[in-house]
Amino acid sequence: MAIAVDTFFLKPDAQGTLQAQIQQMIAEGILSGRFHTGEKLPSSRKLAAHLGVSRITVTLAYTELLANDYLTSRGRSGYFVSENAPVPPSYTPTPARGETIDWSRAIARRFTGGDVLHKPADWRSYRYPFIYGQADPDLFDHANWRLCAVRALGQKDFASLTADYVDQDDPLLVEFIARNTLPRRGITARPEEILITLGAQNALWLAARVLLNRRRKAAIEDPCYYALRELLLQSNGNVAALRVDQDGLPPETIPDDTDVIFTTPSHQSPTTATMPGWRRMALLDRAREIDAMIVEDDYEFEMSFLRAPSPALKSLDGDGRVIYVGSFSKSLFPGLRLGYMVGSEPFIREARALRSLVLRHPPGHIQRTAAYFLSLGHYDAQIRRMSATLMKRRHAMEAAIAGHGLTIAGGGVFGGSSLWMRAPEGIDCGRLAHGLRADSVHIEPGEAFFSGPDRPRNFYRLGYSSIHADRIPQGIERIARAISREQSVWT
Amino acid sequence: MAIAVDTFFLKPDAQGTLQAQIQQMIAEGILSGRFHTGEKLPSSRKLAAHLGVSRITVTLAYTELLANDYLTSRGRSGYFVSENAPVPPSYTPTPARGETIDWSRAIARRFTGGDVLHKPADWRSYRYPFIYGQADPDLFDHANWRLCAVRALGQKDFASLTADYVDQDDPLLVEFIARNTLPRRGITARPEEILITLGAQNALWLAARVLLNRRRKAAIEDPCYYALRELLLQSNGNVAALRVDQDGLPPETIPDDTDVIFTTPSHQSPTTATMPGWRRMALLDRAREIDAMIVEDDYEFEMSFLRAPSPALKSLDGDGRVIYVGSFSKSLFPGLRLGYMVGSEPFIREARALRSLVLRHPPGHIQRTAAYFLSLGHYDAQIRRMSATLMKRRHAMEAAIAGHGLTIAGGGVFGGSSLWMRAPEGIDCGRLAHGLRADSVHIEPGEAFFSGPDRPRNFYRLGYSSIHADRIPQGIERIARAISREQSVWT
Repeated sequence: MAIAVDTFFLKPDAQGTLQAQIQQMIAEGILSGRFHTGEKLPSSRKLAAHLGVSRITVTLAYTELLANDYLTSRGRSGYFVSENAPVPPSYTPTPARGETIDWSRAIARRFTGGDVLHKPADWRSYRYPFIYGQADPDLFDHANWRLCAVRALGQKDFASLTADYVDQDDPLLVEFIARNTLPRRGITARPEEILITLGAQNALWLAARVLLNRRRKAAIEDPCYYALRELLLQSNGNVAALRVDQDGLPPETIPDDTDVIFTTPSHQSPTTATMPGWRRMALLDRAREIDAMIVEDDYEFEMSFLRAPSPALKSLDGDGRVIYVGSFSKSLFPGLRLGYMVGSEPFIREARALRSLVLRHPPGHIQRTAAYFLSLGHYDAQIRRMSATLMKRRHAMEAAIAGHGLTIAGGGVFGGSSLWMRAPEGIDCGRLAHGLRADSVHIEPGEAFFSGPDRPRNFYRLGYSSIHADRIPQGIERIARAISREQSVWT
Repeated sequence: MAIAVDTFFLKPDAQGTLQAQIQQMIAEGILSGRFHTGEKLPSSRKLAAHLGVSRITVTLAYTELLANDYLTSRGRSGYFVSENAPVPPSYTPTPARGETIDWSRAIARRFTGGDVLHKPADWRSYRYPFIYGQADPDLFDHANWRLCAVRALGQKDFASLTADYVDQDDPLLVEFIARNTLPRRGITARPEEILITLGAQNALWLAARVLLNRRRKAAIEDPCYYALRELLLQSNGNVAALRVDQDGLPPETIPDDTDVIFTTPSHQSPTTATMPGWRRMALLDRAREIDAMIVEDDYEFEMSFLRAPSPALKSLDGDGRVIYVGSFSKSLFPGLRLGYMVGSEPFIREARALRSLVLRHPPGHIQRTAAYFLSLGHYDAQIRRMSATLMKRRHAMEAAIAGHGLTIAGGGVFGGSSLWMRAPEGIDCGRLAHGLRADSVHIEPGEAFFSGPDRPRNFYRLGYSSIHADRIPQGIERIARAISREQSVWT
């Protein structure tokens, strides 16, 4: 039997080359059991005419499928589904669903229901996306990333791509971090004191699991990165949220019975405050006094375009008290999921064993690609390009915000990629954000960053890492207009 | 000042093209602070002569560094370290280490000290590597994997590479699994019932965390995959290890108070036993009777070259009682870290929220690359090629083992990539494995797979996924000889 030519369609939204699409169509037909062994494919001429593509495109797709033994060729009589093509087994389908499980009982631990920030999946279609922490195609050095990724796919790197590292990491990446990245933060560390993680989130989670249990107490900043609060509540439960001021976390407010302090000295998340040197010393003194550990999320230090960054808190730590968390996902792209942590060897050893139980290791290919991107200097070059652009955007933000009389609650003296904003008392920024969608403006309501029952609702965050400078004035204008509207309703 | 040409060396073991190596050398010199702004690079002619490479290679490296603004060119006078090149800050180094932390107190939870199997890092240099679960360069379709990876790095896939999926997955990969992979295991699932994980290990860990707590009890197979036992002991503590027989886990031995049963019906790990249909029904009945959940690790079903695989246990599950775990890392390569789990929506929702807290999501690029590799039919083609080769190796294994009078304790009627072996009573296979290293033979001692205090020491596993068929007879001969030697010492 011949397979009818009109069962083939090119999807209008399909990705990849035409040849790949045709190959995929046929492979899927075979794999799903629609095309059977011995059936004849349409001639390349016929299929090409039907799809409106060149004949050579179809022929190349057929040839590829021949090589994979999905098709056989019988000389001039054409192409047929091969005898060796995979045959999907025909099982009776799963019995009709009449599930009997009582899920409220079967689920022993719940992880849903926490604070999450909803990022609209279609944010790229917004005209004024003041979104935080997404990659800007105009800023990311995609071409060189690709080159490094392709190099890491090469024959010479076969082992680093495919190997089961068990609990180890790519030695090339670890060496680069030890020799180049950390010294610039004032940190000296041996490879045994470094662990590669699946982004900063994974590092924070590992640190919390190793350093906390039900009897221990954690201190966090308020407001703070909501996902940190969620993971602490989930793995521990005893969390004190300490209100930050313009210099970040005030050490004197840390309770005596605190075991682990989570802090973001470089750029407080989300207020962007930078902790001054005198307070860093005071924080270390306080931690020593109560014998607490410190987890330092060295958040966005790369984006210091207004002033040179201060060295990390970890650089002042002679006790081995500070666990340092860094991330490449922030300055490259969040989908990378690559970060690292630095701490004394006994700590890293436990974190490594835990990581191995949970996920073994971050995929070898992304580790090697990052190692190349860093060691060839592309990373630094990109940071500098990004900084120049972010500086322009930052100035546009400040000008527009001043022009419209909006209030910056925290701006970050070193730079960063966002501003922490305060709307007038009484404005609900969740409602504000919702209303702004109709104006094609995306802003992030600040409520989720706060802890406790009485959370301020009049804060919002404006990211400027994904919006062009020339769109900023109009975007800010729309926000100002929306706030006035809300106020007039409210007064 | 000019940078001396003799500070440049090509490392004999360096990876990448000569151009990339030169570029890397110079970038590292700048990033580490050895080369300073304004310093003159050696002329391309001089450096080329010194390194013994062509002049164009050096010129291309310089041009690339020019584009990244690490170097500037002053017409005919040559290349200089740019004013805009990154300058490493000079911080006072971390104070000398006199760590004051009492780590025995600071570490709240310990994860080290469990059973691990030591895979020698240099196993590729062994002449007879009976290692389990590593990629064989001769079997893995590296060329097509590369093509798919490059396609996934393309402009059209920018969002899937870079985006923060938060708690979501690549829709293309999920769709392929739902439409093609699962139906072949007899499973029907909607996208909301599928979660992508960082390998099977990550899936098992997530399932354990969601379904177990301190009051609940898990049942595992004995022997079993040691990393599963470790993660259960770590996250729960109440684990009953049930001795398997030639048909896998005997349902009648499952204690009444069991909450979750972990099983490997397709190929019991490590004995490779396949659970027959009648026992699968009995297992489901037993689980229903005591209202227990089942986590099915559908381990190595792809490697069924001796007989067609049975459908998954999940395909018989009308209750929603079975959580299904699958993996691509096993049949592609372990460094991929890509697996998936299938379960009822309330379960997947919790597992997804937990995954998001721990690591957010598996990197977008590997998800998209796998989606292409699968949908273009390369995966199935590779499985078939692998199966043909594994079958040859399996026959060589069986012939050599019979010839030398060794004993197969479990062989797997459907295929697989390893044999579970029993040495004579009294032989310590840990010592056997150690002694065989001198013969360039790697085998895996079986002790770590067993639970409890009195573990049999006379079992070992022989993987044949990374050893050529023509090396097998000699490798087996050496094992037989070593066993005789051990026996003569012992008797």
